[in-house]
Amino acid sequence: MEIRRPFGRKLIMGRLAGYLPVLDWGRRYDRQALLSDGIAALIVTNMLIPQSLAYAMLAGLPPIVGLYASILPLVAYAIFGTSRTLAVGPVAVVSLLTATAAGAAATPGSAEYVAAAITLALLSGLILFAMGIFRLGFVANLLSHPVISGFITASGLLIAASQLKHILGVEAGGHTVIELGRSLLPALPETNVPTLVIGGAATAFLFWSRSKLKLTFERLGLPSGAATLLARTGPVLAVVVSILAVVGFDLEAQGVAVVGHVPQGLPPLSLPPLDPALWSTLLPAAFLISIIGFAESVSIAQTLAAKRRQSIRPDQEMIGLGMSNLAAAFSGGYPVTGGFARSVVNFDAGAETPAAGAYTAVGIALASMFLTPLIFHLPLAVLAATIIVAVLSLVDLGALRRTWRYSRFDFAAMAATIVMTLTAGVEAGIITGVALSLLLHLWRSSRPHIAEIGQVPGTRHYRNILRHDVLRSENVMSLRIDESIWFGNARAVENVIQRSAADRPRLRHLVLNCAAVNLIDASALESLELVTHRLADQGVDLHLSEVKGPVMDRLAKSSFLEGLTGTVFLSHHAAMKLLAPDLTETADRADQPAMDATKPFPERGSATA
Amino acid sequence: MEIRRPFGRKLIMGRLAGYLPVLDWGRRYDRQALLSDGIAALIVTNMLIPQSLAYAMLAGLPPIVGLYASILPLVAYAIFGTSRTLAVGPVAVVSLLTATAAGAAATPGSAEYVAAAITLALLSGLILFAMGIFRLGFVANLLSHPVISGFITASGLLIAASQLKHILGVEAGGHTVIELGRSLLPALPETNVPTLVIGGAATAFLFWSRSKLKLTFERLGLPSGAATLLARTGPVLAVVVSILAVVGFDLEAQGVAVVGHVPQGLPPLSLPPLDPALWSTLLPAAFLISIIGFAESVSIAQTLAAKRRQSIRPDQEMIGLGMSNLAAAFSGGYPVTGGFARSVVNFDAGAETPAAGAYTAVGIALASMFLTPLIFHLPLAVLAATIIVAVLSLVDLGALRRTWRYSRFDFAAMAATIVMTLTAGVEAGIITGVALSLLLHLWRSSRPHIAEIGQVPGTRHYRNILRHDVLRSENVMSLRIDESIWFGNARAVENVIQRSAADRPRLRHLVLNCAAVNLIDASALESLELVTHRLADQGVDLHLSEVKGPVMDRLAKSSFLEGLTGTVFLSHHAAMKLLAPDLTETADRADQPAMDATKPFPERGSATA
Repeated sequence: MEIRRPFGRKLIMGRLAGYLPVLDWGRRYDRQALLSDGIAALIVTNMLIPQSLAYAMLAGLPPIVGLYASILPLVAYAIFGTSRTLAVGPVAVVSLLTATAAGAAATPGSAEYVAAAITLALLSGLILFAMGIFRLGFVANLLSHPVISGFITASGLLIAASQLKHILGVEAGGHTVIELGRSLLPALPETNVPTLVIGGAATAFLFWSRSKLKLTFERLGLPSGAATLLARTGPVLAVVVSILAVVGFDLEAQGVAVVGHVPQGLPPLSLPPLDPALWSTLLPAAFLISIIGFAESVSIAQTLAAKRRQSIRPDQEMIGLGMSNLAAAFSGGYPVTGGFARSVVNFDAGAETPAAGAYTAVGIALASMFLTPLIFHLPLAVLAATIIVAVLSLVDLGALRRTWRYSRFDFAAMAATIVMTLTAGVEAGIITGVALSLLLHLWRSSRPHIAEIGQVPGTRHYRNILRHDVLRSENVMSLRIDESIWFGNARAVENVIQRSAADRPRLRHLVLNCAAVNLIDASALESLELVTHRLADQGVDLHLSEVKGPVMDRLAKSSFLEGLTGTVFLSHHAAMKLLAPDLTETADRADQPAMDATKPFPERGSATA
Repeated sequence: MEIRRPFGRKLIMGRLAGYLPVLDWGRRYDRQALLSDGIAALIVTNMLIPQSLAYAMLAGLPPIVGLYASILPLVAYAIFGTSRTLAVGPVAVVSLLTATAAGAAATPGSAEYVAAAITLALLSGLILFAMGIFRLGFVANLLSHPVISGFITASGLLIAASQLKHILGVEAGGHTVIELGRSLLPALPETNVPTLVIGGAATAFLFWSRSKLKLTFERLGLPSGAATLLARTGPVLAVVVSILAVVGFDLEAQGVAVVGHVPQGLPPLSLPPLDPALWSTLLPAAFLISIIGFAESVSIAQTLAAKRRQSIRPDQEMIGLGMSNLAAAFSGGYPVTGGFARSVVNFDAGAETPAAGAYTAVGIALASMFLTPLIFHLPLAVLAATIIVAVLSLVDLGALRRTWRYSRFDFAAMAATIVMTLTAGVEAGIITGVALSLLLHLWRSSRPHIAEIGQVPGTRHYRNILRHDVLRSENVMSLRIDESIWFGNARAVENVIQRSAADRPRLRHLVLNCAAVNLIDASALESLELVTHRLADQGVDLHLSEVKGPVMDRLAKSSFLEGLTGTVFLSHHAAMKLLAPDLTETADRADQPAMDATKPFPERGSATA
């Protein structure tokens, strides 16, 4: 039992580098990368400051929590993440999910509410980390594209609706459009006009700046690239101008709500609450946050990586996002994931390595140390405007029309997700969508593609009798099963076989062509055994042909082959040669020309005529 | 707008006959069938009397409810069911599920408890009826064979354990083996010896009679068939002898619990309770009862039908069982379904039509009118023995070993179902099983079978490069996708394509062979669109080949084909001819002999060498 140290150490270092991508890119880090990453970080920091404050507000948390969630989590992702350009931090949809889950566990505004948000980050971090280690990324496949797309559209609408109260300067709340409408409508007469003016102006400016600010900068003589990046400073401009307006016109005295005191300094390193009752309450929501956050983030990361022929590793991404959330939990933050808009900006700004994220973290740390006194007078209406403009770009109602045209099933899943999310809340929306898409998948699976096949005259080929002029024998039937057989379609396969056999009183042999079957699970095995017995009761032998190697190996481990009334043939032609020799005769005389086979069902004896 | 009456009426009659199978077989009913059905009914009635009393006790209900559930439901099934020989009525597993659900809604023994059981029958009837009308039978596919088989084994053990208290004559209760053990162990010292003697003797006799009673009758000179049928009277014999023993030795005075007063007469036709709160509490359990009852029943019906080359219609079976349960609900019964043992006896006894079920109903009606005073002294221990002997035949621990050998995945689902059912209850068991089997299906789907294919030299055939000596081009890659693409494997397909392309720096064209793809759902479409864009970013064109007609029709409804960077080819060879002409040249000179192609990856230019 000699342990070969050098090999062992190399192996460990190799695996370690797999779990710590920083060891790979960090080794080749040079001044050029430093410069590119630095510029990208500067631009992303500019964008992230107002966003992190706004998303914290959306999550019902103090603004500082948003800043805290934008420091250590970014550093953690830079060490553990596999995407070169993903910008991690607070995002809209996850903030909404946090608000819903924390709101169910504690009163918004209380210390318990903040503790619940931190616990969500902790649980989400642990879940993602564990799923990454155990390679459970496939669980995200539960979320079909129509469900995710519908959910994000509905969330965008729900978030925008939830921010109207800040634009109007009234008190309102709720987790569904119905609740929001009910609390907002009676409050309309109390609308604070100065707040509405500021909020309306900020929303209009931000919408305008998305499309036109770049052009303006170009007209001022800036090169196109610089203009694109500077155009991203729209939100910061809105923040600065609105603060000046509030201070200049003393708008607070007129009822304009502002951010107020935000503590100065770095996030306190602290232990998240270890309350088992709270953990079990928040666990389902944390699972949802993890899966939705991961599904969104990995898709962004993959798209950006492909643009530079890089690749990401989904399982390691789960670990990276898990570590980010753990970092958030231990530094007073709340759940984070990769954000779409910021990542694109980071990419466009030329970020080369995850170090850009770490530099962004330094920027946010500096902001939370020195800039927080300056945002005392920042109107909440401007933060709300930032959120509304950001989330309305997530709304894609056109997808409903496109999906309707493509597939009614997928449309049903998408529409149900949207309706339930808007009217019954985010968790009900996701659960409905997932359950419905699984049921629709089961329904589709319950109609497997099975074709009766016959011989292409004079050849060794067998084709669908409905599409080709082929020869059949009266007492031998060939069925080709065009998919793997599993519990979702096993009963249907069973039914099709039995029904086919019941229609043919003179049937003696049934041959299942399994060339397209990659899997026969235990339910399917049971079905095949039942079918064998039932056919035997009717005097029909069951045969298989062209069974794939791995499928055959597995069948050999069961007692199915012993109970089989027929034979397993290597080729379908070999089966037909033995069971219907008169039919196949001509195929083996290769010089014979193809014969007339227009008769749909040749009588026995006349098959070779 | 002329309405053609005769045609209309014919159509309506045809559809009606579909929903009322009695119209079909009833028309041809003759004296011979009457005789066969009558004899079968006599034997099944004999078996059903003790069973219906025992299963009512298992469900925690008064014995009369079991008899009520064995009258009108059988008549309803005779009218609406499609199986000729299925024997409907109370069964063990559904009784256990009823006990659990009703016990969660009301105190056992109370009037509310009975009302809950009746409501379960009502809801289950409505659910099955609606599912039958809307052809939703596929929902039963949620229950994979390992999950059902594990659930029934665990239920059998759980039921047997729950009846021990009656054999011992002690007080105990619980819905899991843990609860049962905790309440039973401390009660052991209070065991009532006369009860244990009766219960033990009845259990031993019933076990013996299953295998040996037939032989005994044969030795007495009876013909084999008659002996087989008479052997089924074991339970009735036990009932009669034990009543005589109780009366003769005055065992009630010694603490032997007996059935006691059972009201005499036909079931009262009554409206089931219409309590919305109770309905919503019981709905999930009613759904479970419906699905499990249906899955079991339809499998029995199918097996028996096949033996006589008959067939059943699963959707109409749902309607039949739904009407049975509605009949139960309106006549003071509880949920029913087709029972295995009774159906086999009915079949063996020669039942020819569903009328046998109606005659059985008459038998039970007579019993509930005249025999109930006689069972006053029937010991509960004998009913418990009937249950234990019946359910232990459901226990199939060998299936665990067989499934373990066949598939670790299916074993995991089965084992989890058994463990959870035993330790956390029937509902937790089923839900765990279903969730785990869906997750395992997702996991399997997340590893789709995709093969890189190359040209079999000198031919127009393309085969897996890992299994055949085939030719490839350096800047054209062919991937064959061996399954339908849906949300469960769309991301995996996306990853495989991207990874394959990332490994080939000189790649220019990627051709997806879709010959085995029966479906591309909206998630898969999104993935293919993403892949197209990402490949385009890398300078690679994406092409498709051999797309099936229905799949192509659907793609044409989306904007995918407009965004496609490459072409859709009818045959894979046509694609290769255009994209890698040097490679395919030889295949089109048919006289050329097959060439040496042992080199795994021929350099461009040398391909035709």
